[in-house]
Amino acid sequence: RKSLTIGLIPADGIGKEVIPAARTAIEALGSDIPTPKFVDLVAGFEAFTRTGVALPEETVEVLKNECDCALFGSVSSPSKKVVGYSSPIVALRKILDLYANIRPVLSVSPNPNESSKVDMIVVRENTECLYVKQEQQTVGEHGKEARATRLITERASTRIGKMAFELALARPRKHLTVIHKSNVLSVTDGLFRESVRAVPLRDPRFEAVTVAEQLVDSAVYRLFREPQIYDVMVAPNLYGDILSDAAAALVGSLGVVPSVNAGDDFVMGEPVHGSAPDIYGQGIANPVASIRSAALMLRHLGYADAAKRIDNAVDSVLREGQLLTPDLGGSAKTAEVTETITKRI
Amino acid sequence: RKSLTIGLIPADGIGKEVIPAARTAIEALGSDIPTPKFVDLVAGFEAFTRTGVALPEETVEVLKNECDCALFGSVSSPSKKVVGYSSPIVALRKILDLYANIRPVLSVSPNPNESSKVDMIVVRENTECLYVKQEQQTVGEHGKEARATRLITERASTRIGKMAFELALARPRKHLTVIHKSNVLSVTDGLFRESVRAVPLRDPRFEAVTVAEQLVDSAVYRLFREPQIYDVMVAPNLYGDILSDAAAALVGSLGVVPSVNAGDDFVMGEPVHGSAPDIYGQGIANPVASIRSAALMLRHLGYADAAKRIDNAVDSVLREGQLLTPDLGGSAKTAEVTETITKRI
Ligand SMILES: CC(C)[C@H](C(=O)O)[C@@H](O)C(=O)O
Ligand SMILES: CC(C)[C@H](C(=O)O)[C@@H](O)C(=O)O
Repeated sequence: RKSLTIGLIPADGIGKEVIPAARTAIEALGSDIPTPKFVDLVAGFEAFTRTGVALPEETVEVLKNECDCALFGSVSSPSKKVVGYSSPIVALRKILDLYANIRPVLSVSPNPNESSKVDMIVVRENTECLYVKQEQQTVGEHGKEARATRLITERASTRIGKMAFELALARPRKHLTVIHKSNVLSVTDGLFRESVRAVPLRDPRFEAVTVAEQLVDSAVYRLFREPQIYDVMVAPNLYGDILSDAAAALVGSLGVVPSVNAGDDFVMGEPVHGSAPDIYGQGIANPVASIRSAALMLRHLGYADAAKRIDNAVDSVLREGQLLTPDLGGSAKTAEVTETITKRI
Repeated sequence: RKSLTIGLIPADGIGKEVIPAARTAIEALGSDIPTPKFVDLVAGFEAFTRTGVALPEETVEVLKNECDCALFGSVSSPSKKVVGYSSPIVALRKILDLYANIRPVLSVSPNPNESSKVDMIVVRENTECLYVKQEQQTVGEHGKEARATRLITERASTRIGKMAFELALARPRKHLTVIHKSNVLSVTDGLFRESVRAVPLRDPRFEAVTVAEQLVDSAVYRLFREPQIYDVMVAPNLYGDILSDAAAALVGSLGVVPSVNAGDDFVMGEPVHGSAPDIYGQGIANPVASIRSAALMLRHLGYADAAKRIDNAVDSVLREGQLLTPDLGGSAKTAEVTETITKRI
């Protein structure tokens, strides 16, 4: 690659404040990566309100045909049911077949009261489960009845399982916890569990990984009581959504937790936090999650040194604890934090 | 009522240790309640292993025809897929139409490090959502495909909404948080949310309750960061399952969190914890969740004074912090804790 074309989709709310911060961090890398070219792309609930389209076709086409990777900000959720609106991030994950949502949760302990070191990766299946959005409403004898389909396939469970085993294998502890609720969903979660557990049978490298299982309810309970039992967790889509927010609560703030949506051909970084309408516009959103998402995206593309430079800069700022946004108990602005991180890259 | 017939279904694991403890506590009440008559009933995974039946018809018939209420222990989950097995607790909730699972989570702070006082009730819809267990597996082009139906009806959402508004109205803060994920499940969770929000339109008493909403993922996050924002939470079945375990993590142990499964005609107490095979047989299971479940059951039947006597006895023992089971950091046995609580009733 001579240059790296990066789609930027800030979408709604603080996404518009933190994606530019991530861009600044990438620009600071200089020759460690091919010259970055940024393409601004539209999507989101605000776009929907303005134009009637939450995910313009042009955005999808440019991502598919021109971009090597992308960064997505955050979407607002309508506070009432809005006819015709459907979440663009859920759609993008599916359209680009970004089947793995990888969410490393790591405490850097800027807060000295946070003793227990958290260091885990939530690997979330990203294309199916209740996110297939097959829903119908009918009217029965006692009023409205709504049904949604939860889809779990062997293929998707196997490929997310492989991804999780790869990630576990690359870590010192090499431990994988499979999350499910097969005591209730014996068929769907039964298939997820079996498919993941069958992965090492076809790839003996993975025998080095120890495997445990947890029901999703008790997984959340134990996450808060004994976070150190987890190394890599693999989960169907919705459980992964909940578990990654739960894990984020352990490390001080959602504002520091990054993710990538990864497929075989494309990768899209995305902070785990939402659009935070309550703080949007004040310039106080934490840019760390987005900057770390950029690093994660670059690592996924093979630029490990560049990623490490970003992560080291972020870690040093958090560890010093002098320049923190309000979500971490400080009073720093997005711009100040971004500037300091960028200088240290 | 001259007498109170109480079905006892210890089921599996520590259920067999804690349900007898709850019985002892009820017996200590003397004339504050009608003379209790206990009926021992069979259900569970162990019963299934022994007899091929997880929930004998006799158990259901006796509960329906002879019992005024019941106490259920806990069920073990098979560690592999077992043909023909289906969870008896899920079945009982449906068969007896126990549509509300009411889970008060209250910190008594036996642990001085636990500062934030938690005082909330998770009101979980108990008959539908993915718990309808309509699952199919087919074989497609890329292997097995499994589908589950998630059912949300206006009727069930409205009645659980009413129950939640009633409970909120009876509390000092009168605050209700509706949990959903309507940004993804706009039809099913849209119906849940609308049905709950419509409840005060038909009953102006409920206008005194303030209503908020939270997406389930961020609800779990905020539960850990700011538990004090919650008073009563109402949620579809699966979210309620996860949220109540999450809330339990805040108060020291699942071993202190009680619940009732309540319908219009029947109520069944049930500790929120599972069968804990790792500690079963050692006599160290915490009896508090079951004893509190008995109190909750009695309160639901109208015996508020009797319930209060049990709760006060439990609270005083926990507050002193001298006699705690290992889950709370102590070394007391089930029998000792039960005996001391019973004496104070
Ligand atoms: C915004 C929403 C659709 C999304 C999800 O549920 O996946 C978000 O919560 C996330 O975790 O990325
Ligand atoms: C044992 C299991 C079927 C049950 C549930 O999911 O409802 C349990 O987790 C609970 O919370 O009572």
